[in-house]
Amino acid sequence: MRSIRVRAYCSSANLGPGFDALAVALDAFYDEVEVRVESGSGKVIVESVYGPYANQVSNPTTVVGAVKEFKQFKGLGLEDVDVVIRLFKGVPIGSGLGSSGASAAATVVALANLFYPSIKPEEMVYIAGLAEAYAAGSPHFDNVAASTLGKLVALAILDKGLVVKKVDFDAWFAIAMPVKNIFGEGKTKAMREVVPKTVEMRKAVANWSRVAVMMISALQGDLETFGKMMELDEIVEPARSKLIPCYEEVRKAAKKANSLGVTISGAGPSIIALAKDKSHAKEVAEAMANAYSKCVEAIPIITKTAPQAHTV
Amino acid sequence: MRSIRVRAYCSSANLGPGFDALAVALDAFYDEVEVRVESGSGKVIVESVYGPYANQVSNPTTVVGAVKEFKQFKGLGLEDVDVVIRLFKGVPIGSGLGSSGASAAATVVALANLFYPSIKPEEMVYIAGLAEAYAAGSPHFDNVAASTLGKLVALAILDKGLVVKKVDFDAWFAIAMPVKNIFGEGKTKAMREVVPKTVEMRKAVANWSRVAVMMISALQGDLETFGKMMELDEIVEPARSKLIPCYEEVRKAAKKANSLGVTISGAGPSIIALAKDKSHAKEVAEAMANAYSKCVEAIPIITKTAPQAHTV
Repeated sequence: MRSIRVRAYCSSANLGPGFDALAVALDAFYDEVEVRVESGSGKVIVESVYGPYANQVSNPTTVVGAVKEFKQFKGLGLEDVDVVIRLFKGVPIGSGLGSSGASAAATVVALANLFYPSIKPEEMVYIAGLAEAYAAGSPHFDNVAASTLGKLVALAILDKGLVVKKVDFDAWFAIAMPVKNIFGEGKTKAMREVVPKTVEMRKAVANWSRVAVMMISALQGDLETFGKMMELDEIVEPARSKLIPCYEEVRKAAKKANSLGVTISGAGPSIIALAKDKSHAKEVAEAMANAYSKCVEAIPIITKTAPQAHTV
Repeated sequence: MRSIRVRAYCSSANLGPGFDALAVALDAFYDEVEVRVESGSGKVIVESVYGPYANQVSNPTTVVGAVKEFKQFKGLGLEDVDVVIRLFKGVPIGSGLGSSGASAAATVVALANLFYPSIKPEEMVYIAGLAEAYAAGSPHFDNVAASTLGKLVALAILDKGLVVKKVDFDAWFAIAMPVKNIFGEGKTKAMREVVPKTVEMRKAVANWSRVAVMMISALQGDLETFGKMMELDEIVEPARSKLIPCYEEVRKAAKKANSLGVTISGAGPSIIALAKDKSHAKEVAEAMANAYSKCVEAIPIITKTAPQAHTV
């Protein structure tokens, strides 16, 4: 009988022009997954789901998916044991903060620790991204990459597999998060549907030029330029922001509070802004939450980039 | 009477997925511009064009354009002096190695040294990019950014101005360069015309995800991943490579010689590959030039990333 408990932090994907390619791990919320291995017959048992957002988990499909994909990817079989899981759900669901990704990352990292310590970081991200498909319908790697590896991540999808790079990026962010799950379960799907299928070359070039500058800025510690690029997405943010109530007001409030850059967190509805430091993040988050609350009740969150998933 | 002489190196733009956004300065070739200021009436005089590729310069429009744009941008007037220029043309024209960009960069850096030492790097790049329009029909900032600042550069075009970031990237490259200007003067225009006006979102995302990973790789010294990303452009390279004779053969030769990544240099026809070190670059360049020479006579070039434009 072996057991392990792993914490994985929430994350914010896209960061403006980096749709499906960039994400940051944030210490605002975390999930914890406790994996216990018992002699058995290959079952995956979710023994309990608890914690502040447990009641929002209709079905812990991502966690179960993570176990299935892990077994399959590594051909471990594990047919003579049962994997018993307890999930602490600390990341709010449907907020654009990578809730299912945090569960998937924690599960995969726990399994890797138990069964395959020599696994590569990219393999963990890949498995966790496949697990996302159990909840989201298709694999997504950005949130799980951040929750697995921590800090800032960039990932390139290849024909076969992916390449993930991590940057030790330290920054404070302000988030305005609606208290209720304002979009419900169809959010991710609806938010994917408004993303255009084709884009003008001019806009595509603009986005990758800004992503290039963003990454160099992150590595050179130029927060100001990083933030400036964050809010210069001409493709996804304009399409999605129309579906987010009061988006323009929140954006303006962030700008007025001198945020370094503001955009949608993941598929929303949380809105994220880069701040200069902790006290500035507080100021920006409060201004944003106030503006948001004219449409929907929202709370201010002050958070910094979080470390990789780790045992607790 | 004051005078100054500035050298600016050639460059390779795009680097695969970074179309119009990335470039490296390379020490294979350079232009030098000598600027002399004499009392006069605001004229721009190109006194001589000399050097190995002088005979390919039909009209030194970029150099003249650089002076005009510099005067205008900085509102310097300079109506009581003549600017007399001697141009050493060391960068072959029409090869995809940023020949006009090197001339523009050298001119702007020379003028900046004489008249405006406090100029910002981005302003120099901006002026030199505008000067490119005198030859190319529209401003281009990628080659001039590399020739001005050196090493690896990324640039983001904004509604107003641009943001340029430099990475101290040290690498060896192999180039196969056709001996003759195989496309003639209409090359840049023809090569721009085949670039699609709209692209699938999927491909655009792929490109910026790879650009993100490339930039982090450059800063973290991961040449292998940098090279892998270089050859994963699904938008521009597939369209342009069809116009380059023997492209597929050259690409395969580079792969066979274990190049880390291969793609078109700028708008071509030179083909550029990333190598592990100097001796590997020699091996790769020779393999590529051999393959190229089945279609057009081509020479192997071994080169490394070059410093910024500097006085000599």
